Amino acid sequence: MEKRQLLYEGKAKRLYSTNEEGILWLEYKDSATAFNGEKKASIEGKGQLNNHITSLLFEKLKAEGIDSHFVQKLSDHEQLVRHVEIIPIEVVVRNVVAGTLAKRIGLEEGQPLKHTIVEWYYKDDELGDPLINEDHISILSLAKPEELTVLKEKALEINSILTRFFNEIGVDLIDFKLEFGRGKDGSILLADEISPDTCRLWDSKTKEKLDKDVFRRDLGSLTDAYQTVFTRLGGVSS
Amino acid sequence: MEKRQLLYEGKAKRLYSTNEEGILWLEYKDSATAFNGEKKASIEGKGQLNNHITSLLFEKLKAEGIDSHFVQKLSDHEQLVRHVEIIPIEVVVRNVVAGTLAKRIGLEEGQPLKHTIVEWYYKDDELGDPLINEDHISILSLAKPEELTVLKEKALEINSILTRFFNEIGVDLIDFKLEFGRGKDGSILLADEISPDTCRLWDSKTKEKLDKDVFRRDLGSLTDAYQTVFTRLGGVSS
Ligand SMILES: Nc1ncnc2c1ncn2[C@@H]1O[C@H](COP(=O)(O)OP(=O)(O)O)[C@@H](O)[C@H]1O
Ligand SMILES: Nc1ncnc2c1ncn2[C@@H]1O[C@H](COP(=O)(O)OP(=O)(O)O)[C@@H](O)[C@H]1O
Ligand SMILES: [Mg+2]
Ligand SMILES: [Mg+2]
Repeated sequence: MEKRQLLYEGKAKRLYSTNEEGILWLEYKDSATAFNGEKKASIEGKGQLNNHITSLLFEKLKAEGIDSHFVQKLSDHEQLVRHVEIIPIEVVVRNVVAGTLAKRIGLEEGQPLKHTIVEWYYKDDELGDPLINEDHISILSLAKPEELTVLKEKALEINSILTRFFNEIGVDLIDFKLEFGRGKDGSILLADEISPDTCRLWDSKTKEKLDKDVFRRDLGSLTDAYQTVFTRLGGVSS
Repeated sequence: MEKRQLLYEGKAKRLYSTNEEGILWLEYKDSATAFNGEKKASIEGKGQLNNHITSLLFEKLKAEGIDSHFVQKLSDHEQLVRHVEIIPIEVVVRNVVAGTLAKRIGLEEGQPLKHTIVEWYYKDDELGDPLINEDHISILSLAKPEELTVLKEKALEINSILTRFFNEIGVDLIDFKLEFGRGKDGSILLADEISPDTCRLWDSKTKEKLDKDVFRRDLGSLTDAYQTVFTRLGGVSS
């Protein structure tokens, strides 16, 4: 496989075309951003940890019947993925109150929710990724109602699987963000990444944060936290 | 009927108990507030215009089969209403892009929507009345799913009726906010007010604003705008 031209550079990854139609070359960067890009840093080793963790989680999900864009890991910071048409909705799944949910509805961070919450956010940096509802999605033609049903079902299933995985390694899955895309045949595929950048992960016993909140809230070494997650997941750094 | 003690003083109205069980005495104040209380003024004549307009609209809705808390108008600024347990959700119905919707999803104010949007906002001044979804409503036990179905149905029916009323008098109903409450028997009743404080109303031809945006955006005399609405609705000031 050959890497061709840069298609898109985002806050955390670069996307390149390849010599194979429908396959992208994904490069994880070492940059960390928060608060819609207001806080920025370069953190050596972060890109490769996210690449390793995402690859590992997508493989685990695949084994449980959840297809994703993931094709294979190429190197420490690169992977091949299937090219999809990203649905511009960030699907957020929450098991415990944290972050913007605490602010929005006035509940204490750390309070377990009596049932899982699914939220839709409009993936639009300029608008600050606002919370939206099904009517907004329809007005903006972001997704069809049938697609939303699939997104919600898949998100909840992924939540069950990941909650169990993380539980086994002494980590609470507090909340996480998913992105989905449409494949060539219109089928809906899990895409983007699942990493400590996109999940809130707390040590089950100490409640120590093992995710991007370490960066957002200046709680210590981000790569130490991510490395803990990767090691507990059984990953071995190359 | 006798007015008894003050039960609640809000931003726009005072609620008193009466000598009759289940009946409240509602007093419309002359105060105008916007941006969650950040902008305030006292505007003589506003309370009575809202009282007259709300009374007239609740009567028109009643004639179309929509029950509300409204019992009778007592004076220029007072009415009797049935005491309900307010559901702390502001139900917002939108036909045309304006206000916070324009900001949230990045569409131009004045753009007609291809279909009506219904939004839920958590009625909580401290939290700034945030947009919420059905999962948040369930977590906060604000309303049962069956109740939400009824709220949405009623809101859309009220929208059809009011859109027609206003159309007949050369006014576009851009958007509006409703509050509902539970009656003694658990039935859901339209409550609170429907006035230029809680609707966006634009002159159909000139698109002149005839609602609280005149105050929010300093566009001229608020009572002139409200008086125009009242006069066109066929109201005669006492
Ligand atoms: N399989 C895929 N096909 C096409 N685009 C993808 C795929 N997976 C992820 N993307 C998109 O590539 C970009 C990933 O880069 P990232 O740095 O995370 O971007 P952002 O700054 O938008 O979060 C995102 O816009 C994401 O939606
Ligand atoms: N029929 C009713 N029974 C009980 N409470 C009501 C009824 N109608 C309206 N209310 C409540 O009374 C208050 C009305 O006062 P208002 O000044 O509009 O308050 P706010 O500042 O909360 O908007 C609101 O909290 C509203 O929900
Ligand atoms: Mg991203
Ligand atoms: Mg009010």
